[in-house]
Amino acid sequence: MPYARVMQEKSSFERARSPQAKRMREQAILDAAVRLSTERGVRAVTLTDIAADVGLHKSAMLRYFETREEIFLRLAAAGWQAWSAAVRAELDDLGEDAPLPERAHRVAAILAGSLASRPLFCDLLAHTPLNLERNVSLATVRAFKVSALAEANAIATSLRRALPLDDAEARDVVATATGMAGALWQMAAPGTQLRNLYETDPQLSHAVVEVGPRLTAILARLLSGSLMS
Amino acid sequence: MPYARVMQEKSSFERARSPQAKRMREQAILDAAVRLSTERGVRAVTLTDIAADVGLHKSAMLRYFETREEIFLRLAAAGWQAWSAAVRAELDDLGEDAPLPERAHRVAAILAGSLASRPLFCDLLAHTPLNLERNVSLATVRAFKVSALAEANAIATSLRRALPLDDAEARDVVATATGMAGALWQMAAPGTQLRNLYETDPQLSHAVVEVGPRLTAILARLLSGSLMS
Repeated sequence: MPYARVMQEKSSFERARSPQAKRMREQAILDAAVRLSTERGVRAVTLTDIAADVGLHKSAMLRYFETREEIFLRLAAAGWQAWSAAVRAELDDLGEDAPLPERAHRVAAILAGSLASRPLFCDLLAHTPLNLERNVSLATVRAFKVSALAEANAIATSLRRALPLDDAEARDVVATATGMAGALWQMAAPGTQLRNLYETDPQLSHAVVEVGPRLTAILARLLSGSLMS
Repeated sequence: MPYARVMQEKSSFERARSPQAKRMREQAILDAAVRLSTERGVRAVTLTDIAADVGLHKSAMLRYFETREEIFLRLAAAGWQAWSAAVRAELDDLGEDAPLPERAHRVAAILAGSLASRPLFCDLLAHTPLNLERNVSLATVRAFKVSALAEANAIATSLRRALPLDDAEARDVVATATGMAGALWQMAAPGTQLRNLYETDPQLSHAVVEVGPRLTAILARLLSGSLMS
């Protein structure tokens, strides 16, 4: 066995003792979860798969994360922060030059485009309330919810700077953008075999969904309707 | 052991031999799945739970259904048929007397109200693409998809009789109604402990969702925006 490989295996199995070593190990676990779930989808990735990818025994993983759900909830929280920062930067750049209907369409395209370009976040959005908020402590769910709600509210505030919406309208736009991104993504990428079935079956070709354009159209109409009220 | 109880146990364990007896047994399994998942939520109900409720051994269940997913996919198909029939009857009754904005609001209330009054269907809608379309044969998924798409298209046709929408707009309204019913229901009823956390925590009280009113507001704005284009 080459020396480098021995050292690598030794360090992977060694218990992380300093706080810094522990943080690095946690980050390696999160990176492995991102890689595996981007390839196969969140649903198909188990704690054992992640452990194998980082070179840890499953029991050793429990020092860092209680369950696979806790790992994915951390990824979902990071996903909210990254999406929120990106979408708010784009919304704040929009300016007020364009007439209202055109601005509403641009806002819809910004929301939909930034979600469609983050397939793992779309996958996580669909799984969060169904599967990921369960096998974790209430304290973990609470921390996740508080952080995700803060990002959703920050996006709603940016929306209200870009367009004359009231608070409930802006929050409903964020809820619809994230809810439908999750739902449409699940229809668009339901595993290779299913996607193939949809595409090759004339009775099912309507079931094939392109997340970006479809979500842009829905959000553009929702925003126009909100501006009328 | 009383005679009736003996007979009941005998008949539950007996193999259903005639096609009619087989259909009755299938229906008993589906009824048990409805009862258990209405009580606990779809996610929490296993094949073993359903088997225990009908008084069959898990291995005997496999004569009727391959997996729990196949049972719930059958319930989802039945849910689409029942919801579609109910919502189309209400839409077809609407008439054209009311002015357009008021009619759009009534259509939104019909769609949202008929979904909110079917919590098990909302639960199934969220689970279908994520969890239920997987552990079943492609033929089963195909049959489910063809049937659900036919109902969605029939509802879109009724929508276009009630309001001047084009085909894409009408289909997007159905997709948003069902997608957001699933997403909002998951937030509204995420298990007693979580719901309790949301309600008692001032930082999380925004996370509490009432499916009916929230979905009505979103669909009313989506419909108004669709009518403008």
